[in-house]
Amino acid sequence: MDCRDVELEINSDALQDLEQSWTGAEMTDSIERIGVTRRWSDAVIHAETAYFVEVADDPSQPTHGQVTQVLDQIDARLRQLGSDRTRLLQVLIYLADLGDAAVLNPLWDEWVPAGHAPARACVQAGLAPGYRVEMVVTAAVP
Amino acid sequence: MDCRDVELEINSDALQDLEQSWTGAEMTDSIERIGVTRRWSDAVIHAETAYFVEVADDPSQPTHGQVTQVLDQIDARLRQLGSDRTRLLQVLIYLADLGDAAVLNPLWDEWVPAGHAPARACVQAGLAPGYRVEMVVTAAVP
Amino acid sequence: MDCRDVELEINSDALQDLEQSWTGAEMTDSIERIGVTRRWSDAVIHAETAYFVEVADDPSQPTHGQVTQVLDQIDARLRQLGSDRTRLLQVLIYLADLGDAAVLNPLWDEWVPAGHAPARACVQAGLAPGYRVEMVVTAAVP
Repeated sequence: MDCRDVELEINSDALQDLEQSWTGAEMTDSIERIGVTRRWSDAVIHAETAYFVEVADDPSQPTHGQVTQVLDQIDARLRQLGSDRTRLLQVLIYLADLGDAAVLNPLWDEWVPAGHAPARACVQAGLAPGYRVEMVVTAAVP
Repeated sequence: MDCRDVELEINSDALQDLEQSWTGAEMTDSIERIGVTRRWSDAVIHAETAYFVEVADDPSQPTHGQVTQVLDQIDARLRQLGSDRTRLLQVLIYLADLGDAAVLNPLWDEWVPAGHAPARACVQAGLAPGYRVEMVVTAAVP
Repeated sequence: MDCRDVELEINSDALQDLEQSWTGAEMTDSIERIGVTRRWSDAVIHAETAYFVEVADDPSQPTHGQVTQVLDQIDARLRQLGSDRTRLLQVLIYLADLGDAAVLNPLWDEWVPAGHAPARACVQAGLAPGYRVEMVVTAAVP
C-alpha cells in the first residue's frame, strides 16, 4: 500500500507470491483479513471495525486523478466489507505536498455523505515516489 | 481540523453551510457523530471508542499557546463525550517542528493524569500554515 | 516512545519517577494500561484492542538494527499482552528517510506471518534525533 518503489527490488517469484495471495482471505478468532499479501492486507476487520490504507492504483496521474482513484478505491473496499462511506470513523490523510489540499478538499467535500463525515487529519509527509496522497481509513462494519 | 488554509478558498455560502452544520449530531446504527460538517466531524463514536482530531482554535498563538489550547480542547471534547482524560487510549501528535517537543512535553506531562497515560507517538509533519501542533485522539467512552 | 531527545531536559527526579512508574499497571473500567509513565503507556488495551508505539530501545544502531529491534520489541509487547504477531490489525510506519524502505521491507516481509499481514501505511516523517523508524501498532488481544 506504500513504499511501492521498493517492490521493484523484490524478485519476480516473490511478486508472484504476492499476487497469488492477493485474493486470499483469513480468519483468526475474531479477525478477518481481505487481500492478504506477505506485506500487508487490503483490509483487516476486528470488533466491528475495519482498518485499511489506500494509495492510487495508478500513480502516474496527477493529484486530482489520484484523489479520485483513492476515494473510488475506498468505496470499493467498503462495499467489499459490507459497509459504505456513511460508516467512516476516521481518515488520516497524508499529502506529499500540503498545497494539494486545494485539490483534495473539493473532491473530498463532494464525496463525503452529508451528515456522515469522519474524524479527519491531513498532514504533509514523504510518500513513495510518484504518490501524491495516501489515506489511512478506520470504518465501522456490520 | 486541518488543511485550514484551504477553507479560505471555499466560498462564503459553503462556509455558512459548514457553520450551520457544526452543531449537528447524527446516529447510524452504532455510530454517533458530533459536530458534523461537510469535511469532518468533531468526534465519531463507535464500539465504545471515540475518534477525534484537534488543532488550536486560535493558531495565531505560538507553540506554547497552541499546545495549551489543544489540550483544553481535548478536555472539552472528552467532557462532551461523557469521557475524560483518564480514558485516553492513543494520541498521535504531529509537530510542525520537532524541536517544539521541548515546549510540548512539559505541558503534556503536567496534563496527563498520573497512571493514565495513553500510547503516544510524536513526529514532525507538515501542517497547514500557522499551525504548530495537531493531535489525533482515540479515547474510550462509556 | 518518541521525542526522546527532550527527555534529556527532564531533571533526574522526573526521570526517576518515570522509571519507578515504568512497571506500573492500571485499570479503569475496561481500560488496561501497561508500563505507565507520566508521558505515555507502553500499551493500552480497550475493547479487545491494544494500542502501542515502538521505537528502537538502542537508537545508536543504523536502520537495519533499529528495524530488527522494533520488530523484536513488538513481539515482546504482544507476548506481554497475551497476543502475538498473527493478531496485528494495523501498523503505521514512520521512517526518517523513506529510502530506508529498502532496508525495512525485507525484514518486515520475513517477520510478518504468512496470511496474517496487518493493514500497513509507511511514510516519511521527522523523528527524534538518531531514530530511523517508529511503528504505531493496533493489535487484537484475547
